[in-house]
Amino acid sequence: MSDAVLVIGGGPAGLEAAKSAADLGARVILVEKREHLGGTPDEAGYAALTPNFEPAQEALERMRAGVLDRPEVTIHLGSRVVDASGEAGAFSVTLENGAGERTEVEAGAVIIATGFQHFDPGRETQMYGYYEFPDVITLVDAERMLSQHKFVRPSNGEVPRSVAFIQCVGSRDRRLGNEYCSKVCCGISSKQAIEVRKLLPDTRVYIFYIDMRMYGFWENQIYWPAQEEYNVNYVRGIVTEIVQKDGRLLMKGEDTTMGRPMEVLMDVIVLAVGMEPSQGTKEVSRTFNVPQDKYGFVHVPGEPMDAVSTEVPGVFVAGAAAGPKDLEDSVSMAGAAAAKAVALVRRQGAA
Amino acid sequence: MSDAVLVIGGGPAGLEAAKSAADLGARVILVEKREHLGGTPDEAGYAALTPNFEPAQEALERMRAGVLDRPEVTIHLGSRVVDASGEAGAFSVTLENGAGERTEVEAGAVIIATGFQHFDPGRETQMYGYYEFPDVITLVDAERMLSQHKFVRPSNGEVPRSVAFIQCVGSRDRRLGNEYCSKVCCGISSKQAIEVRKLLPDTRVYIFYIDMRMYGFWENQIYWPAQEEYNVNYVRGIVTEIVQKDGRLLMKGEDTTMGRPMEVLMDVIVLAVGMEPSQGTKEVSRTFNVPQDKYGFVHVPGEPMDAVSTEVPGVFVAGAAAGPKDLEDSVSMAGAAAAKAVALVRRQGAA
Repeated sequence: MSDAVLVIGGGPAGLEAAKSAADLGARVILVEKREHLGGTPDEAGYAALTPNFEPAQEALERMRAGVLDRPEVTIHLGSRVVDASGEAGAFSVTLENGAGERTEVEAGAVIIATGFQHFDPGRETQMYGYYEFPDVITLVDAERMLSQHKFVRPSNGEVPRSVAFIQCVGSRDRRLGNEYCSKVCCGISSKQAIEVRKLLPDTRVYIFYIDMRMYGFWENQIYWPAQEEYNVNYVRGIVTEIVQKDGRLLMKGEDTTMGRPMEVLMDVIVLAVGMEPSQGTKEVSRTFNVPQDKYGFVHVPGEPMDAVSTEVPGVFVAGAAAGPKDLEDSVSMAGAAAAKAVALVRRQGAA
Repeated sequence: MSDAVLVIGGGPAGLEAAKSAADLGARVILVEKREHLGGTPDEAGYAALTPNFEPAQEALERMRAGVLDRPEVTIHLGSRVVDASGEAGAFSVTLENGAGERTEVEAGAVIIATGFQHFDPGRETQMYGYYEFPDVITLVDAERMLSQHKFVRPSNGEVPRSVAFIQCVGSRDRRLGNEYCSKVCCGISSKQAIEVRKLLPDTRVYIFYIDMRMYGFWENQIYWPAQEEYNVNYVRGIVTEIVQKDGRLLMKGEDTTMGRPMEVLMDVIVLAVGMEPSQGTKEVSRTFNVPQDKYGFVHVPGEPMDAVSTEVPGVFVAGAAAGPKDLEDSVSMAGAAAAKAVALVRRQGAA
């Protein structure tokens, strides 16, 4: 028996889960494979959050403060879960740090918050030339530049005259096996498009999309401002090939609104790469014998009425380890998972 | 000082919030204006949930069981919140039942789970003739028929030869002031389309859409099955007018994929009505001085990193009271709000 909650992953979902469980008075063990808390938004150097444009590091700093220097929370940085046994109320888990040192911890409940990784646009989609042309970049590369308040052509450091975003790279693609929509790329691309236009008012910015999934309030928060205040151009179209021409990038495809072929010259092309389960998500699922869906995300059998319980009693999931999630989804799932985990360890303790 | 959590609204979000708080050992007061728990899915007679097709009443029964006959949970049915004072840790709230009897309750924290109401398609959109033609119905009317395992022309009780769904009725409409996307209608229409095809294999079913917002896994769970297994026809188009012709409904508009006008005869037309804040959401917000957005939904200032805290300390929100939400969103928010509410009353109690 253990009254501790083990949270695996120190990104937004993990930080929120750990804080919520600690706020409820539970003992929390937080494990993060990197030497730093913050997860993908930190590791990938996000500039600003979607949709509110808050600097990512400010938001992460606030979330880190929720778990640091608290007597209830023990943090293992640079550590991975390498083995687990036991059951709800009494899991024994082996952690290993970079030096190969192992630690055994006991936990009554587990929250998997190991997140996603960005689709690698070199895999099976060479038509976009990500590894061939330095000026073809991803949303992640763009965020990294924007977080330094700049946006240039990587090939020569010059200001681009024209920038194109290509949506659904690695998502909604049956050939790749990723049929799902990654949910956030439409919003993030539109946010970045606004940021580029703010930085570079003379640069034309285009978003080439299948459809814009601006659910809820994003339509007002990002899509209309992008068009009306920042003159971002949205073109419904399919890009089939990118080649180099006169030192620029020639984008070939079809404008599907006009129903005609298009060939346009761009200086920078940003690939809106989707979400895949992270290596950690796949490994931790196996370690706890948690069934995964065919993509490798943690399977959540009780959806839609329970978005956080896995098929293994006592093991919960929060954030994009369970599939494409936005930040609101991730932090809400984290709070819900913390509530269920703490209720479980309390119940076990009382029994 | 009170260690109780007041949950206002007995739909999915309220039931989950009440259960989560009780599971954490808190005293819970659950207030529901109707004489029955279950919220909109119950009141509107939903047939099956999106995306998993579970019978709605089975899911609701499971959720009701989470709060009924529990010593921690006091339930006030047929009651509304009519007054409130105090602050985080010590709210005094007046409830009133149908007989006009008033009860005072004390609560340390409040969770608003008062949900949404469906857009009234008579308001400013007479072009669809909802109040004119009996065979023009809404998603809600369709659910009610489907929950009785039937789907007929309301005008004459006959099996329809052709059924059309029209998306985005009351959503994404600047003229109406509802610019937001209601998030769930694409999924629900596709689910209903599948149900109609299952019941009536000789009926043609069409979905007329602006774009299909099948985020996350819905693309695989609903959209592809609808097309490939159930032969539902998706037509990108705009419907501008519905008139009666030869005892059927003539739908006029434009097929925007083909870029040409269309006129098609239908027997039943289902309007995919969006979400607006319920009367209860607007009233309760005012009672607790909780700022609302311009649509009347509860404003959540901390998004995206906190989807459940309102601008009033101690008052949280879960579900569609805060804007268009799907069921996963609603129950995750409910768990997160319960965690924050219980942590607050514990902290106050300890202070």
